[in-house]
Amino acid sequence: MNSKLLDLRIQGERLWDALMAMAEIGATPKGGCNRQAMTDEDKAGRDLFTRWCEQAGATVAVDAIGNLFARREGRLPEAPPVMIGSHLDTQITGGKFDGVYGVLSGVEILRRLDEAGVETSHPIEVAVWTNEEGVRFAPAMMGSGVWSGALDLNRMYQATDSAGISLESELRRLGCKGQAPAEARPLKAAFEAHIEQGPILEAKGCQIGVVTGAQGVRWYDLDLTGEPCHAGPTPMEMRRDPVAGLLPLLGHCYDLAARHAPWGRATIGDIGAQPGSRNTVAEKAHAKIDMRHPETAVLDQMEQSLRASVAEACESGKLQGSLGEVFRMPVTEFAPECVQAVRQAAKRLNYRHMDIVSGAGHDSVNLAAVAPAGMIFVPCENGISHNEEESAKPEDLEAGANVLLQAVLSMAC
Amino acid sequence: MNSKLLDLRIQGERLWDALMAMAEIGATPKGGCNRQAMTDEDKAGRDLFTRWCEQAGATVAVDAIGNLFARREGRLPEAPPVMIGSHLDTQITGGKFDGVYGVLSGVEILRRLDEAGVETSHPIEVAVWTNEEGVRFAPAMMGSGVWSGALDLNRMYQATDSAGISLESELRRLGCKGQAPAEARPLKAAFEAHIEQGPILEAKGCQIGVVTGAQGVRWYDLDLTGEPCHAGPTPMEMRRDPVAGLLPLLGHCYDLAARHAPWGRATIGDIGAQPGSRNTVAEKAHAKIDMRHPETAVLDQMEQSLRASVAEACESGKLQGSLGEVFRMPVTEFAPECVQAVRQAAKRLNYRHMDIVSGAGHDSVNLAAVAPAGMIFVPCENGISHNEEESAKPEDLEAGANVLLQAVLSMAC
Repeated sequence: MNSKLLDLRIQGERLWDALMAMAEIGATPKGGCNRQAMTDEDKAGRDLFTRWCEQAGATVAVDAIGNLFARREGRLPEAPPVMIGSHLDTQITGGKFDGVYGVLSGVEILRRLDEAGVETSHPIEVAVWTNEEGVRFAPAMMGSGVWSGALDLNRMYQATDSAGISLESELRRLGCKGQAPAEARPLKAAFEAHIEQGPILEAKGCQIGVVTGAQGVRWYDLDLTGEPCHAGPTPMEMRRDPVAGLLPLLGHCYDLAARHAPWGRATIGDIGAQPGSRNTVAEKAHAKIDMRHPETAVLDQMEQSLRASVAEACESGKLQGSLGEVFRMPVTEFAPECVQAVRQAAKRLNYRHMDIVSGAGHDSVNLAAVAPAGMIFVPCENGISHNEEESAKPEDLEAGANVLLQAVLSMAC
Repeated sequence: MNSKLLDLRIQGERLWDALMAMAEIGATPKGGCNRQAMTDEDKAGRDLFTRWCEQAGATVAVDAIGNLFARREGRLPEAPPVMIGSHLDTQITGGKFDGVYGVLSGVEILRRLDEAGVETSHPIEVAVWTNEEGVRFAPAMMGSGVWSGALDLNRMYQATDSAGISLESELRRLGCKGQAPAEARPLKAAFEAHIEQGPILEAKGCQIGVVTGAQGVRWYDLDLTGEPCHAGPTPMEMRRDPVAGLLPLLGHCYDLAARHAPWGRATIGDIGAQPGSRNTVAEKAHAKIDMRHPETAVLDQMEQSLRASVAEACESGKLQGSLGEVFRMPVTEFAPECVQAVRQAAKRLNYRHMDIVSGAGHDSVNLAAVAPAGMIFVPCENGISHNEEESAKPEDLEAGANVLLQAVLSMAC
């Protein structure tokens, strides 16, 4: 790569202005964004993206699940492209940066390369993956999932929102059901810049996270059934109380995370009891469990231990119990050459950086199954994300975009 | 009391037939009853009661909150009556016996005294207390609460059901708003027969529970607030997780019940977390707590200990917490002369009996504040109540009615 390209830099102001312009679409009173996938707002955001990319000389194609690909040709048109991508859809009370930052960093790279008249060997494409958040239509990471073969296109078409409207009908209504097949093509490499959505970089004073992979995720539904009875007259020792049975099991989840610190995670985001009457010992209790770790063997161990303790709690509490797995995201290790490209760029640009494992799922986790993929994290304020108050510093966003630019160029030239 | 009265007995068949006839009103497909207070079904049940009492020579009066009083005059018309009473309203999926048994035992006593031409010194009244269950209109034990002065009549009139219909309008519509003032009159004594609604008598092989009092009940809302964050990227030690904070507190409730065994009770009938998303550390967690014990000092101790542990959990988990008391039923000790009358009757009738403390609230708890009161428990199958499968044996119901009859006569003669 020639030194002119090594010196090519993105200035943060235009990137910031693009982020703020996109944030006006679906803006919420509290300063966040509600731009759920395949809504009028999502369409407006996608149109703005398309306009910007075309102005920068790229050609935008749409595939059958609505993924957008803005392509800047390279010297070797048959060479596999270097892909930059993320998503434009948001949570209901989402922020301005989650996903959007990765897409608009790509737009800024297209603009910068266009202005500087740079010619790369490989084409460069900026992708907008449809429905990463999975809020209106489940599951999450849908567009990249279909594209990479993890999800079935026709089943996704049939996904419906809470009003019973299908994804396919919305794709049609919005003109987002494109001609290109929603399936993987060979890629030279794929990169995604993203806010960390956690507090580690901020706490460590780093501007750049070199993402080496993503934690494996397992979701379980824990259900316990006992026997409802009156809270007053029933002696404690004659009860079959599923709430009492639940407590040590949830405690065990937290213990498992602690035992496998610092990367073990256990989250119990929802708990409940039925019938939910204060003066009736519950008949049923449930919890939704999320467990994470970057090693498959450890996840297996955690699951085994939890299953054993469920069996034990049911035995001792005379309860019926089940621990059902409802979702599994395998452990992801990003391609060494992509990780190295990101690390090298951060080093040469002299940004404080550290290796980091993604705790969350991203489109790149899907891409990693079919192409060499890598990610760049930048800090976000207090680690807050999926929240209207989501915030990030312009200088950090600029740093991440420059690492992205250099990593892309290192692969594309 | 002369030996003719001492030998007076109730045969269980007619009592059973009355219970089954009443159970047809609001009968549910699963064999239970849905006869919620101040519905058409409740009115039909009250009318049937009135007809039966009038056929047995009693005069039925209605007070301003709809309590019914079927009065059988005594030799001394100015003497305070001996009151028998319970309720006819049921839970939504209620049974055939809860409350109804106490009322229809009274009806059977009126019939038996009428047939035998018995003349008592004191009048005998059989009361139907309005809305004991508190399902459609809160709070529970309403009619006896107003009558005894614990609840305000006009505030109760304004109680509304989930459709916004007021109790007063339903009292008027059904012709249940009577002329008699809803306020306590002097009583010689008050007795209530009731199924135990717990498993103790059955487990001990006793037909009669001599109820010495009722446990004090305290209801608390425990609310914890932390900080929502993403389940993946946020290290365990940087979380402020209200679900994690909740677990030891609920465990502490159960510990408190165990520490004050056998009468200490802790029930956590409802738990929850908000926003309730599996992959978001919850912002809030809550539990509805019911604590019971027959001694006020112990209840105070339990509460103090729980409050201390809430403060500790908030401190160590960096949470905001509150433990709000939402209801308190004071400890009740029934009048020694009434308890003794029940015990003596059970003894003389040669029924296996034991002293027992009521874990649940009953209309008699309200009456005990203004009159000498006592209760008789009979076993119910597996201790199940507030359930369509609620069941009791005819011979136990007969035994309880005979104890009731003899206890009433011992006071009325």
